[in-house]
Amino acid sequence: MSLVTVGSVAFDAIETPFGKTDKIIGGAGTYIAFSSSYFMDKQNIIAVVGDDFPKEMLDKLRDKGVNLEGLQVKEGEKTFFWSGKYSNDMNTRDSLVTELNVLEHFDPVIPASYQGCEYLMLGNLSPEVQLNVIKRLDERPKLIAMDTMNFWMDIAMDDLKKALKEIDMLIINDEEARQLSDEYSLVKAAKKIREMGPKYLVIKKGEHGALLFHGDDVFFAPALPLEDVFDPTGAGDVFAGGFMGYLASTDDISFENMKRGIIAGSAMASFCVEKFGTEKLEALTKSEIEDRIQKFVQLTDFDMNHSV
Amino acid sequence: MSLVTVGSVAFDAIETPFGKTDKIIGGAGTYIAFSSSYFMDKQNIIAVVGDDFPKEMLDKLRDKGVNLEGLQVKEGEKTFFWSGKYSNDMNTRDSLVTELNVLEHFDPVIPASYQGCEYLMLGNLSPEVQLNVIKRLDERPKLIAMDTMNFWMDIAMDDLKKALKEIDMLIINDEEARQLSDEYSLVKAAKKIREMGPKYLVIKKGEHGALLFHGDDVFFAPALPLEDVFDPTGAGDVFAGGFMGYLASTDDISFENMKRGIIAGSAMASFCVEKFGTEKLEALTKSEIEDRIQKFVQLTDFDMNHSV
Repeated sequence: MSLVTVGSVAFDAIETPFGKTDKIIGGAGTYIAFSSSYFMDKQNIIAVVGDDFPKEMLDKLRDKGVNLEGLQVKEGEKTFFWSGKYSNDMNTRDSLVTELNVLEHFDPVIPASYQGCEYLMLGNLSPEVQLNVIKRLDERPKLIAMDTMNFWMDIAMDDLKKALKEIDMLIINDEEARQLSDEYSLVKAAKKIREMGPKYLVIKKGEHGALLFHGDDVFFAPALPLEDVFDPTGAGDVFAGGFMGYLASTDDISFENMKRGIIAGSAMASFCVEKFGTEKLEALTKSEIEDRIQKFVQLTDFDMNHSV
Repeated sequence: MSLVTVGSVAFDAIETPFGKTDKIIGGAGTYIAFSSSYFMDKQNIIAVVGDDFPKEMLDKLRDKGVNLEGLQVKEGEKTFFWSGKYSNDMNTRDSLVTELNVLEHFDPVIPASYQGCEYLMLGNLSPEVQLNVIKRLDERPKLIAMDTMNFWMDIAMDDLKKALKEIDMLIINDEEARQLSDEYSLVKAAKKIREMGPKYLVIKKGEHGALLFHGDDVFFAPALPLEDVFDPTGAGDVFAGGFMGYLASTDDISFENMKRGIIAGSAMASFCVEKFGTEKLEALTKSEIEDRIQKFVQLTDFDMNHSV
């Protein structure tokens, strides 16, 4: 089944306790596309870059089966750039530089070949852009998932609330869920957020795993305990990409299959944090991914055959 | 199989965002004994109280099958008292009052009927007391598990290191694991701590679940997502009590059975936080506990039958 991803394709500069990078390739769209590419031969991206964006990186995405027809290259303009520094425990980060550049007036164009897509992943962008993509699709996809962040809750809550009514699933982190719902308890937050629109909610808790809510069902997947988290940048997008790639490739949105998607996404995220940027994600093998998924099975599997 | 628990039987006064209590019954030994009582008809406690400790509470423990022969009542002395206040998010707490009283010179006495016990749970007490209990047992139990806290790492690290060499399993929280190992990564911390002695290590992460390490095996159990955490006091002890009660009652210390024990302990802890103090733990039914364990199965169960 076809997957369309909307998201930034960008430059990042990252500093962690383990080192720092020059300008490297980043952006939610890039991370989502790389991650989902391991589950699908073909997919589609909607994004915008400046003419400073390296052709080789676009070739790498093409090699992974990513259709770039919907990626606009703006002559004479610069690509979105973000720079951030992580704290020693990696649990917080400060944005040092945010240059919107081409993202400031991003007007998403949907190529005819993308129409009729069954799965839509709206990466973290302004809710206005996210809404425009939904409006410009001739048919409603089978599953629309969306990410967002605190920033949009601060400056564009009205648009965000409109977007929430149009989607099936919201994928955000615990801090964002708390801000959006004004509830500390994630169970209460989940209830309130689903009343705002999305039937499905994923709350990512970083190193503490992820929760999936739907109706009265809750599923929890841990993060893989790792010796070192080298660079958490993009892990949430990689999670979403693995999840959506898995769902689209299996074309099954039952709760049971969504659980498997959560595990697939968690496995992909565990690779992402092992190196700076997209490095680790560019060259994984299917057997590495299958082994990693088996680690999640081993980590969580128990058989409660004894009664109390 | 027989279980001996050493731990404080005490008074607590607790303040949470949901309310505050007068002096109520608390103490690691009390929580462990109540929790394990649901898995075993009979067990044994080693502890000390003053003559101010209410007889009714001792009767409640006796009713749960707890043998109090090893509980010393010191005439003319007062019971250990702790008072604490939780932050709004319940993730931190300040100790307001700590009166050691009878605990200051606690010299554990082991009744003859406790000798030959197969399972020993050393609740959080000074490492010297914990070591004395081990020394005073004629035969080494099949499994010795121990809790400790930052306080002992600050003031009695030498004794603590001696105790670590004598035990099979350490059960501590993430903060304690980080302090004991001087490692932030829990995977690295687990490696270092197991080099100090215990073959098995449980790291409790509060609302984020618990990890069990042994050899190259790791098991993770989440905490149950709850609408409200009313009072976290004792949850770690209740977890340990449920775990040890389960192991002792099934008399199986294989890794597979320890996983089940972790789930049993997690289920018991999820009850503990729903009310102040021991209230919820005093009157659970087996079917409530079985239902709660099933919630953990539902929360974590997935079947990864599709390949990538």
